[in-house]
Amino acid sequence: MKLLVVGTVAFDSVKTPFGEVNDVLGGSATYFSVSASYFTDVSIVAVVGEDFPDEHLEMLRQKEVDVRGVMRSSGKTFRRKGEYGSDLNQANTLETQLNVLADFSPILPDEYTDCDFVFLANVDPVLQSKVLDQVKKPKLVAMDTMNFWIHGKHGDLIETIKRVNMVIINEGEARDLAKVPNLVHAAQWIQDLGPKTVIIKRGEYGALMFNGKTVFSAPAFPLETIYDPTGAGDSFAGGFIGYLSSVNNLNEASLRQAIILGSAMASFNVEDFSLDRLKELTYPEIEERFRMFKNLTHFEDSISLQ
Amino acid sequence: MKLLVVGTVAFDSVKTPFGEVNDVLGGSATYFSVSASYFTDVSIVAVVGEDFPDEHLEMLRQKEVDVRGVMRSSGKTFRRKGEYGSDLNQANTLETQLNVLADFSPILPDEYTDCDFVFLANVDPVLQSKVLDQVKKPKLVAMDTMNFWIHGKHGDLIETIKRVNMVIINEGEARDLAKVPNLVHAAQWIQDLGPKTVIIKRGEYGALMFNGKTVFSAPAFPLETIYDPTGAGDSFAGGFIGYLSSVNNLNEASLRQAIILGSAMASFNVEDFSLDRLKELTYPEIEERFRMFKNLTHFEDSISLQ
Repeated sequence: MKLLVVGTVAFDSVKTPFGEVNDVLGGSATYFSVSASYFTDVSIVAVVGEDFPDEHLEMLRQKEVDVRGVMRSSGKTFRRKGEYGSDLNQANTLETQLNVLADFSPILPDEYTDCDFVFLANVDPVLQSKVLDQVKKPKLVAMDTMNFWIHGKHGDLIETIKRVNMVIINEGEARDLAKVPNLVHAAQWIQDLGPKTVIIKRGEYGALMFNGKTVFSAPAFPLETIYDPTGAGDSFAGGFIGYLSSVNNLNEASLRQAIILGSAMASFNVEDFSLDRLKELTYPEIEERFRMFKNLTHFEDSISLQ
Repeated sequence: MKLLVVGTVAFDSVKTPFGEVNDVLGGSATYFSVSASYFTDVSIVAVVGEDFPDEHLEMLRQKEVDVRGVMRSSGKTFRRKGEYGSDLNQANTLETQLNVLADFSPILPDEYTDCDFVFLANVDPVLQSKVLDQVKKPKLVAMDTMNFWIHGKHGDLIETIKRVNMVIINEGEARDLAKVPNLVHAAQWIQDLGPKTVIIKRGEYGALMFNGKTVFSAPAFPLETIYDPTGAGDSFAGGFIGYLSSVNNLNEASLRQAIILGSAMASFNVEDFSLDRLKELTYPEIEERFRMFKNLTHFEDSISLQ
């Protein structure tokens, strides 16, 4: 099936306790599409500036990512600068240069409008809605968001949420959006707006999926070295929706496997800076990590008490 | 098998967003033993004051907990006062009155010294070691501890850790003890002291078990209402070691099931104040919650990528 992602392509400068990189390839659409590319056909809609080197687009093309929807605008590419302390769950954003992103309005190439799966990465909810106006009959629309939109464009955000099937959101943001401390209640609050499925990302603690009435809990992989958490959430979403698109199925069993594959992709991504690890993966490595997640969580059914 | 717990029996005053209770039954040995009593024969060593009503001991006796090791000293029972805000992971201790606990020195009744399983709840590591001097040949010794001892009695704590098979500890305390931010490294650091098994408690995020070279991740149960987190860790330990004692087995499969049963007992405990929920459980309820943990974490093995 065809999977469309709308989001950012960026230059990231990141400092972690393990090192520092400057102006490396990043952005939600980039992490998402490379992660999803292992499972399905992905198309990107995004914008870059005149300074964006073709080698990055070439890397995406080699992953068979359709980059015809990556517009080039006059000006500079979106840039972010961030820092992580020893608590790698906590990012400090030092600088954000919107640059070409400031005037971004997503226009889908005709060939993109019949996509079956759509991921609206974390951008202005008004832009997310504009994308939905252009797609014909998607089977699944999932979206991410962040505190900036929860507070700054609350009404627009709620309208967009009402139009999607699935919300993928950080734990703190879910609580913030629903204005309740309890996560079960927060997920229910979001489901009541319309989306059948709510996925709560919890960083090093894994993810919770609320799908209709069922709940699934997935751990994060306990890694010995986390070099850079940048892009973990989008790598997760890419593996997750990429797998769903490949099996073309939204039943509970597939959703659960997809969550694990998303978690596996995120666990690879944080093992190096930028997309350095994510872009070099092999299928045996992904399958091996999936099995490691099984080993990490499996326990026998039968108990005899008394 | 016979299971011995050494810890506190206390009066707790607790305030949470859901209510307030004063001078209710609490203490690590109390929560542990009631939780474990559903699975095995438990004996307590602890101290109470002259003000401790016999009805609480009678409740324990009715759970078939052996309370011959509960000494009564002149003075008042250990008292704690705490408060939880909307973040129920974070306890604020408002007051601690050691009272009879100040001069506590655990003396095991003769009948206790041949116990097979031992849990050293969170007390002074010097007292924990004194208990180990008195037990003959236990099959498993597990211990808990806290920041107060990590900083205040570091050398004694390390000596005690070297004598046990298993450490059950909070996430933040594990990092604090090992002085490393990464949990895999923290667990390895503790294992290098001697214990084969390290269990990291993560509150609403569940638990990680490092057992030799294997790792197991258990979620916490996503509850809609958490009335009072007091005693969750000790209820967890009680269900965990209680089950191990009942099956008299320390293989990986049993340890994993035990972690889930411990998590189940903790999830019941937080549903009401004091031991009000924990003491009224039935086996069908425990088995049902065990199955719910299975439903919460299960996913199919087989994936086909590409």
